[in-house]
Amino acid sequence: MTATKEQPNQRANQPQPEEDLGGVSPPQRNWKGIAIALLVILVVCSLITMSVILLTPVDTQAGSDTKLAVEDLFKAEFKAHDPEAKWINDSEVIYRNSDGHVIKFNIVTNETEIVLMNTTFVNFNVAKYAVSPDLKYVLFAYDVKQVSDAFRVLLDGALQELWELDPPEVVNSVLQYAAWGVQGQQLIYIFENNIYYQSDVKSNSLRLTSSGKEGVIFNGIADWLYEEEILGTHVAHWWSPDGERLAFLVLNDSLVPNMALPRFTGMTYPKGKQYPYPKAGQPNPAVKLYVVNLYGPTHTLELMPPETLKLREHYVTMVKWISKTRTSVRWLNRAQNISILTVCDTTTGACVTVSELWLSKQTQEPVFSKDGSRFFLTVPVKQGGRGEFHHIAMFTTQFRADQNEVRHLTSGNWEVTRIIAYDENTDNLVKTVGLFPRRCLTCELNKAHCLFLDADISPTNQHIIIHCKGRPQFFGTLSSFKHIPVMLADYYILENNFLLNEALKYKRIQQTDFRTVSMEHFGEKKESVSLLSLWISDEFAPGGQAVSDRFSLSWDSVLVSSDSIFVARLDGRGSGFQGQRILHEVHQRLGTVDVQDQIAAVEYMMKLPYIDRTRIAVFGKGYGAYLTLMMLKSTDSLFKCACAMSPVTDWKLYGEYKHCPHKHTANITQYEFSSVLQNVQALREQTLMLVHGTADANIHFQHTAELVKNLVKVGANYSMQIYPDEGHFLSQQSRQHLYATLTSFYRECLKEELLPLPDDEEEEEE
Amino acid sequence: MTATKEQPNQRANQPQPEEDLGGVSPPQRNWKGIAIALLVILVVCSLITMSVILLTPVDTQAGSDTKLAVEDLFKAEFKAHDPEAKWINDSEVIYRNSDGHVIKFNIVTNETEIVLMNTTFVNFNVAKYAVSPDLKYVLFAYDVKQVSDAFRVLLDGALQELWELDPPEVVNSVLQYAAWGVQGQQLIYIFENNIYYQSDVKSNSLRLTSSGKEGVIFNGIADWLYEEEILGTHVAHWWSPDGERLAFLVLNDSLVPNMALPRFTGMTYPKGKQYPYPKAGQPNPAVKLYVVNLYGPTHTLELMPPETLKLREHYVTMVKWISKTRTSVRWLNRAQNISILTVCDTTTGACVTVSELWLSKQTQEPVFSKDGSRFFLTVPVKQGGRGEFHHIAMFTTQFRADQNEVRHLTSGNWEVTRIIAYDENTDNLVKTVGLFPRRCLTCELNKAHCLFLDADISPTNQHIIIHCKGRPQFFGTLSSFKHIPVMLADYYILENNFLLNEALKYKRIQQTDFRTVSMEHFGEKKESVSLLSLWISDEFAPGGQAVSDRFSLSWDSVLVSSDSIFVARLDGRGSGFQGQRILHEVHQRLGTVDVQDQIAAVEYMMKLPYIDRTRIAVFGKGYGAYLTLMMLKSTDSLFKCACAMSPVTDWKLYGEYKHCPHKHTANITQYEFSSVLQNVQALREQTLMLVHGTADANIHFQHTAELVKNLVKVGANYSMQIYPDEGHFLSQQSRQHLYATLTSFYRECLKEELLPLPDDEEEEEE
Repeated sequence: MTATKEQPNQRANQPQPEEDLGGVSPPQRNWKGIAIALLVILVVCSLITMSVILLTPVDTQAGSDTKLAVEDLFKAEFKAHDPEAKWINDSEVIYRNSDGHVIKFNIVTNETEIVLMNTTFVNFNVAKYAVSPDLKYVLFAYDVKQVSDAFRVLLDGALQELWELDPPEVVNSVLQYAAWGVQGQQLIYIFENNIYYQSDVKSNSLRLTSSGKEGVIFNGIADWLYEEEILGTHVAHWWSPDGERLAFLVLNDSLVPNMALPRFTGMTYPKGKQYPYPKAGQPNPAVKLYVVNLYGPTHTLELMPPETLKLREHYVTMVKWISKTRTSVRWLNRAQNISILTVCDTTTGACVTVSELWLSKQTQEPVFSKDGSRFFLTVPVKQGGRGEFHHIAMFTTQFRADQNEVRHLTSGNWEVTRIIAYDENTDNLVKTVGLFPRRCLTCELNKAHCLFLDADISPTNQHIIIHCKGRPQFFGTLSSFKHIPVMLADYYILENNFLLNEALKYKRIQQTDFRTVSMEHFGEKKESVSLLSLWISDEFAPGGQAVSDRFSLSWDSVLVSSDSIFVARLDGRGSGFQGQRILHEVHQRLGTVDVQDQIAAVEYMMKLPYIDRTRIAVFGKGYGAYLTLMMLKSTDSLFKCACAMSPVTDWKLYGEYKHCPHKHTANITQYEFSSVLQNVQALREQTLMLVHGTADANIHFQHTAELVKNLVKVGANYSMQIYPDEGHFLSQQSRQHLYATLTSFYRECLKEELLPLPDDEEEEEE
Repeated sequence: MTATKEQPNQRANQPQPEEDLGGVSPPQRNWKGIAIALLVILVVCSLITMSVILLTPVDTQAGSDTKLAVEDLFKAEFKAHDPEAKWINDSEVIYRNSDGHVIKFNIVTNETEIVLMNTTFVNFNVAKYAVSPDLKYVLFAYDVKQVSDAFRVLLDGALQELWELDPPEVVNSVLQYAAWGVQGQQLIYIFENNIYYQSDVKSNSLRLTSSGKEGVIFNGIADWLYEEEILGTHVAHWWSPDGERLAFLVLNDSLVPNMALPRFTGMTYPKGKQYPYPKAGQPNPAVKLYVVNLYGPTHTLELMPPETLKLREHYVTMVKWISKTRTSVRWLNRAQNISILTVCDTTTGACVTVSELWLSKQTQEPVFSKDGSRFFLTVPVKQGGRGEFHHIAMFTTQFRADQNEVRHLTSGNWEVTRIIAYDENTDNLVKTVGLFPRRCLTCELNKAHCLFLDADISPTNQHIIIHCKGRPQFFGTLSSFKHIPVMLADYYILENNFLLNEALKYKRIQQTDFRTVSMEHFGEKKESVSLLSLWISDEFAPGGQAVSDRFSLSWDSVLVSSDSIFVARLDGRGSGFQGQRILHEVHQRLGTVDVQDQIAAVEYMMKLPYIDRTRIAVFGKGYGAYLTLMMLKSTDSLFKCACAMSPVTDWKLYGEYKHCPHKHTANITQYEFSSVLQNVQALREQTLMLVHGTADANIHFQHTAELVKNLVKVGANYSMQIYPDEGHFLSQQSRQHLYATLTSFYRECLKEELLPLPDDEEEEEE
């Protein structure tokens, strides 16, 4: 069974969703005062495909509060509630409802039960919770440290007895991680970079590692590089399905230079902190992979990397158990041109290479059949003129790479983003022999409700949790998976986000309406609107996707709703889900074609009749801020103003793994070319705002500081906003301040200067 | 012989200098376009005395460049050249002329000789130089480190042989200090907090101390507290007059908490630094005073503090040799209410108390007679209703405090700022018995040329170097001291700053014209001008003086010259040179009466007919920025905009010595009251700009960071400018940027909004 993230220009294949949205413009509509958000998908080298988002007409009686305001964004009713539903067995789900109670729901009997009252969360200021596999205890993370992510842990039993989780002979310990295992009351936690294990809540802790040293040796937990760039999580350990074994990484950062994060506030003598951060070309952490068996006397075994990588710098990018004793592991050399998938026997430590196919997604988990004789991966497959796209391939293996047999199961100019499960029992569902019949399981659901889905399947593939991340409704649903396709009648709504949807009814919010028509259908110029080009970091980092049906409500929504400002998001070369060719265009060429595409798109937009070419602005964060600055440097008064938040200004100062040219160590000089810091004279005459948190552990404040120094040198004018001791993601308070700052910055910058619009009562509220 | 810094409202006693300035306004003058700077001396409790500065009319043919621009400030011709003239014996002076040559000038023979060519300075990028007492060698500081003030030292002999000054067995050492002694080629330098001595250039170095430890034990050099707050210099050692002995402080900072200064730029992994900084209420460095004899086998002797201070925390605030073997020392307890002046015999280490008179200027050096039987100090003396003023007192002493006899030699509502010398030989000059005839030595000079003087007298009081720091001319002069009063005919001009004076001729620059008339004499309102109230830290710190004849040309001069903005400086309660009562009004009450006075003065100004009360702004740096913020908090839209640079926002985070309530340790809570960080809601609606260097070692960036955090909390709008890795005093590049930022900030804020002025051709240049 597969779930695919559809590429927007494939939507013609779907039932026409536009017709269900009721918002297609009759030409007589008065466009003034109706906010329009514009999304552009730019596929340079082929065609420019555009998609427009229109506003749903608003209940007019709502009057003056139809405009979304920054304060709205921070109100409870404007926040989507994610029930974070999890399967606990094949028929039961645990989730947290909108009242804050933790509920157990049985999909077969339709029974619900409150496992935990919401009051408990309030009493202990709980940040996270987890119910033990045997449902007898709850683990609470509370008193979470702002900076370090560390927390203290409470255990709550059936009798409401509470006690803290502490390593032996330590009190009030601050843990880096704590979680249940997979069986009974198995507990694991990490303290001072060592892993501790408890077979049940009341047993003694067993320390599984002893080498842990803060900032140097990391056991079972990721350092910056592995958390931020490779694994995408700080969890660097993996349970075997039966809970008998634990695989974990040991990262040795002793050769990795430390970066200092200063601290300015909160005490008379604030102390900064240091942590290992391998900038481009610097030594990486040495990685080793171990497996410890937990039943009986523990012993620990190293899983050895393939011979070819043993003596070279390498990464472990993926670990996945495929049976009680075997685990699959992907190894990658530092230059990222050799990728080896092995299957390791954790009783002997022996690893066998099963694939040496290079993947662009090194963290992708293979889906194995139960006997391990075949596995599935998405791999780039050439699809005619548009280059390679990710499609499902089935590998059969005798655990020898040279005997692999590969079969491609899907094809087309679209991408498979994730293989959720492989159901061996129902052969009629996914035929792996003969013709592969692709079948959309959620298209009916799409048609009526949701255009951006995620799914979580039950342990034996019987049921599925569907999470809609699009508009108009948000909901986490639990659906019987037996009857296919998933119909409305088949699912139980865990969370319908009623309050949010009600709140949005009375606001003028952009509504996604993807289409491949040109913008000219708006007809003659009714009003001249300004344009904000928007790049938010993660969406726009290479391989990311800015243009999607995913719903989000942020400060740019306020500009759309209240100020009739177009907001454009653009996916150019370097973006993901449009095939490998587009993705790889920026390989070793950051700041070149990606910047060109963005400029080309803006220039295209400028020619549209309703865009005022003198009022175009740009915003970017992270990689997007890098693009923003590069665009400013290579254009002359194209943008009226710009804001770069947490910009990367010099790739030498960033980690190399994701963003840097891969074969890096030899020619560090190529970074010079892509640095923002060269020739900043071009930024002198721009209206530029810089925003950065001083404790940003991902893109260091250093980047902005170096830029500022260069701007000062050339006497450039700019404004800035710094958030002391805040990281890459700001606290809510700072976000609220930032959003207000950004909206007024762009409002001021993009306002029509000469002719205030007459007789528009809604303008008066601003 | 005494030099007095005249209090401005005493100027009526002087010949009317206004009449010489030629700039008093005929009422028919068109005020528009003529920049006016307004200085206000505010003496609350008595009368408001005001002084006005007018512009000299400019040669009109100069046309369009009569307005001073920010760029002008950084041109060579707009910088006063200080020749830094020094006496090398009673008839010879060494100074550096405007061409950069080092000149020896003989006042008796009128001969000049080039000691050192300017090319040497350029070749080695020399920051400082010093000629050896025997004139045979020159010491150069070069390659000065930006952050740490440390430097490398070259010695240059007569034969242009160059070598580096290095401690034994160290190469390319970075020294903290190096200087000649007082005899021959005596050399002293400080490396890694230890003192090294060389009897001549070619002899071996002798390490005089060994306890030195970076950031912990300081020998002969000051830590932050002693440099910034107590001594005002990083030199913490003093030569005996014959060069045979050296007194030096040993500061033990091991109990002083370290403050971290972050670093952001200049390297891939920037490292911050730490240094001991005793914030209010924290442990101070322990201080000991030693004397080492340098001739023959060295031995070191501790000079003991008076019994009453031995077991208490105390400071050494002043050390001055009064003979070859005796030195005077002032000791002060931490609470600063016990001040003891001792005379110590450096052969035995015994110290005798000669005065327990409490002084407000603890660093003031007593001037002793040769035999040590009497000494002179300025001490506060009650002068009728206006309270105490500093006047010269003569103490006779048998080295026993209880036998002291005190005679007051001067009196009046003005202050003696410094006793330059006591000439025992010419009894007719300064009679210390009978009537004390005060005689102005420089009034003739004043009358014609200069209103702000400093003086440096030759070793045997025969000649004097006069340094004019006022307007219109800048010059360092060397004058025969034999003929008194000093007449124009008697002096030799070392530096007339011809280029500067020429450059200023063609610019409209404010010219000081002190008077005690009310502002109303300007007549009816001709034009409405805006007002910038200005407080620069050092001038405005308690005991400082903002209103004086001292000439300065800075960004505020640009606003005066180009934008017709009034600039006001105000000395209220807490300011110096106006008697002790005014100074002590802020004692333990920072942020109260000082703020009230500033507001009262601004409110008074607002009522003047030519001030537009809607266009008033304020700027402050350091303590001035503290006042600025406090004023903003306690007024409601009085100021249209404000900028606070390097503000103190919480006195708990600053050193206690100068600015904090003295009896501090017991009730730290009183700082809360004076903190800017409380109730920042009042700052929400203000147009506020914050400026700070992130490596400010005096007022830490912490102050601004804490303020920003609080402003973010209340959703306040503000702009900011940070200078990465810059200290309390910005680099020239950053200053240039800052000045441009400040002028455009105030220009924008203070511009007349509705009615642009017609037919003024000069407005067009902006």
